[in-house]
Amino acid sequence: MTMRQSKLFVKTLRVAPKDEESINAKLLIQAGYVQKLMAGVYSFLPLGLIVLKKIENIIREEMNRVGAEEILMPALHPVENYEKTGRQAIEDLFHTTLNNKKKLVLGQSHEEVVVPLIQKYISSYRDLPLAVYQIQTKFRNELRAKSGLFRGREFIMKDLYSFHLSEDDLDVYYKLVQTAYQKIFDRVGISAKTFLTYAGGGTFSKTSHEFQTITESGEDTILICDKCHIAVNEGDLNLFPKCPKCGGELGKSTKSVEVANIFPLKSRYSDAFGMKVKDNNGQDKSVIMGCYGIGVTRLMGVVAELFCDEKGLIWPQEIAPFAVHLIGLSNNVKAEAEKLYEALQKANVAVLYDDRDSSSAGEKFADFDLIGIPIRVVLSDKTIDQKKVEVKYRTSQKIELIFIDQLISYINVW
Amino acid sequence: MTMRQSKLFVKTLRVAPKDEESINAKLLIQAGYVQKLMAGVYSFLPLGLIVLKKIENIIREEMNRVGAEEILMPALHPVENYEKTGRQAIEDLFHTTLNNKKKLVLGQSHEEVVVPLIQKYISSYRDLPLAVYQIQTKFRNELRAKSGLFRGREFIMKDLYSFHLSEDDLDVYYKLVQTAYQKIFDRVGISAKTFLTYAGGGTFSKTSHEFQTITESGEDTILICDKCHIAVNEGDLNLFPKCPKCGGELGKSTKSVEVANIFPLKSRYSDAFGMKVKDNNGQDKSVIMGCYGIGVTRLMGVVAELFCDEKGLIWPQEIAPFAVHLIGLSNNVKAEAEKLYEALQKANVAVLYDDRDSSSAGEKFADFDLIGIPIRVVLSDKTIDQKKVEVKYRTSQKIELIFIDQLISYINVW
Repeated sequence: MTMRQSKLFVKTLRVAPKDEESINAKLLIQAGYVQKLMAGVYSFLPLGLIVLKKIENIIREEMNRVGAEEILMPALHPVENYEKTGRQAIEDLFHTTLNNKKKLVLGQSHEEVVVPLIQKYISSYRDLPLAVYQIQTKFRNELRAKSGLFRGREFIMKDLYSFHLSEDDLDVYYKLVQTAYQKIFDRVGISAKTFLTYAGGGTFSKTSHEFQTITESGEDTILICDKCHIAVNEGDLNLFPKCPKCGGELGKSTKSVEVANIFPLKSRYSDAFGMKVKDNNGQDKSVIMGCYGIGVTRLMGVVAELFCDEKGLIWPQEIAPFAVHLIGLSNNVKAEAEKLYEALQKANVAVLYDDRDSSSAGEKFADFDLIGIPIRVVLSDKTIDQKKVEVKYRTSQKIELIFIDQLISYINVW
Repeated sequence: MTMRQSKLFVKTLRVAPKDEESINAKLLIQAGYVQKLMAGVYSFLPLGLIVLKKIENIIREEMNRVGAEEILMPALHPVENYEKTGRQAIEDLFHTTLNNKKKLVLGQSHEEVVVPLIQKYISSYRDLPLAVYQIQTKFRNELRAKSGLFRGREFIMKDLYSFHLSEDDLDVYYKLVQTAYQKIFDRVGISAKTFLTYAGGGTFSKTSHEFQTITESGEDTILICDKCHIAVNEGDLNLFPKCPKCGGELGKSTKSVEVANIFPLKSRYSDAFGMKVKDNNGQDKSVIMGCYGIGVTRLMGVVAELFCDEKGLIWPQEIAPFAVHLIGLSNNVKAEAEKLYEALQKANVAVLYDDRDSSSAGEKFADFDLIGIPIRVVLSDKTIDQKKVEVKYRTSQKIELIFIDQLISYINVW
């Protein structure tokens, strides 16, 4: 994937938007990744969509690895399904009506759809366990939506649902998904600041888990056990007054944002729809479920907020929109820059090529810092005389001069 | 991409669903590609999602080729934007309300969002032309939704919007997109039955164009000029009584379904939002727009309906969920079948491997016919004795015996 900056319709903004309170939205809008349509509702611009797809693909790979099958369920749900589970009055559901007066809600999660969907295909213990997931747009009627991508009215989630014959079998899969989630947060670049967090399970389970990422602007508060790299949600200290793993004291309160949650649903939703299978004695048994969510667009906001400085974004390598930001500084170096752009394309290096004639060196450098691509490669009159390019990482101040014909192997080594 | 049929949670159905009237929904549900949540609202199951993504990627490639930039706009739209264009009272809009009483609609197209989005980045003729597209879920409050994927209340569309300084420039791009669309329909496999169709342009343009695909169950009617491979929409015969290209007589009325439309919007929407740019004399000029839609999920339904027989689906090669349906017929051939499955995987052949122990040969063959993968490869006691496999195309009755170690080169040749 390569792109010429002159062809991008989006331009970075000189100053951060004044109508945003959150760091993530300020930065992502200023750098041209997203645009706000209204509070909690954003459009993804070309670079933003690339990052989003990269995050989605990491999640997809790890979900496929734990044997989950990808599907895609609708956003329009019949309200009858919610009457069966008793969730029709949830405050932050969006409601709408068909022209024939039938009442609908917009999905903010999919238990009410996935249970009847799976129910059509399972009848015996032989059909279990199974797990399905989707990466899909959700709607939540938030009264306040001021945290940018942290709390959207419309947002993308990955939601996984697993179906089991027994709670023991659920437990095994539940732990497997925990590990997959840790892998995802590792690949996305936030694992050092992300904690498996113990929380209450509501009325039908003792414990559920969240993954909370430390950030000043988070709306949650957790207490961390440094030794075990796990945490407890402040709201559930009554259940977990000490570290649930080592029994030691928990640290002080820290602000965090929930990037994922996993929940043993047991038979709460399967019973509501009468979803049962025959066990190996021919007896009807309730199907035991787990659900596992990751806020995909939220995750993008979290990464933006964790990896930035006063100049702009600093994308972790695996989800950066491009690996290299190639900058040509004058018309004299145009031919050489075009050649290098082509060579990088051929070597399968993802490049954003700043080929704009009308921008100054200062503007181009400021854009590199704001957009946050990991490596800056600059061709100028001076470097060209030595058959070299200037290479600088976004995370470092050091500038190195590398022979042009050694650039690709230099980048690959890194 | 490979998959074991024993791991698929979806099972084909013995009989077509009785609550569907349309051939496409009957077949796609029976073969396990989609499931109905309610009329006009479907879930995409694992095989259905693979086909859908293949269609999306064909469209994406051809859109990128005409220089359009991919973005992703939201489904929740503020109704104020529709008050500006006068479209707030369209009958088939879905309405919903924020908890703070603000009124929203669910997008069925995105003129009201894309114009203010682009407006923030353009000011001069130098910023034009530009084109953006998205592949995104749309909502339409259809009173009747009984044609399966042909007419959804929730459906996926590709919508492209182009922005120009002059009508001449729009005309050039408009023709380029026509060609891209023809390429898409060619790759998807429906070009022989798909016609560029002339239609009226409404109040602000003389002509628009549709792409109509001939099918008995279509809701539209077209008249074809065989010589030019173009058509006229019956509703617009007053505008085009003869072939708009050669001036010859049009053929008789034929039922068809609209798979795409392209529309010169001119300044209808840009003026509503006051979107202007400075021309090279410094004068404000209205931006001239075109819009170009393809019904992505509808296209999947159309292909299903065009390519089927009494036994099931017959996917065209480029969008088939897999290239090969590998079937092992007994436990004796299991080891050999597993080896072949692995070899095909290594050779990057997309395989669905029917490794189910509990199904009969008859059931497996019926599933192959129903699911509609292009090539069936069967291992049985008999073929194994000769170190061979049985190869049959879905489109042919002929069965060939091929040496196992020649299978991959045999398939690649095809």
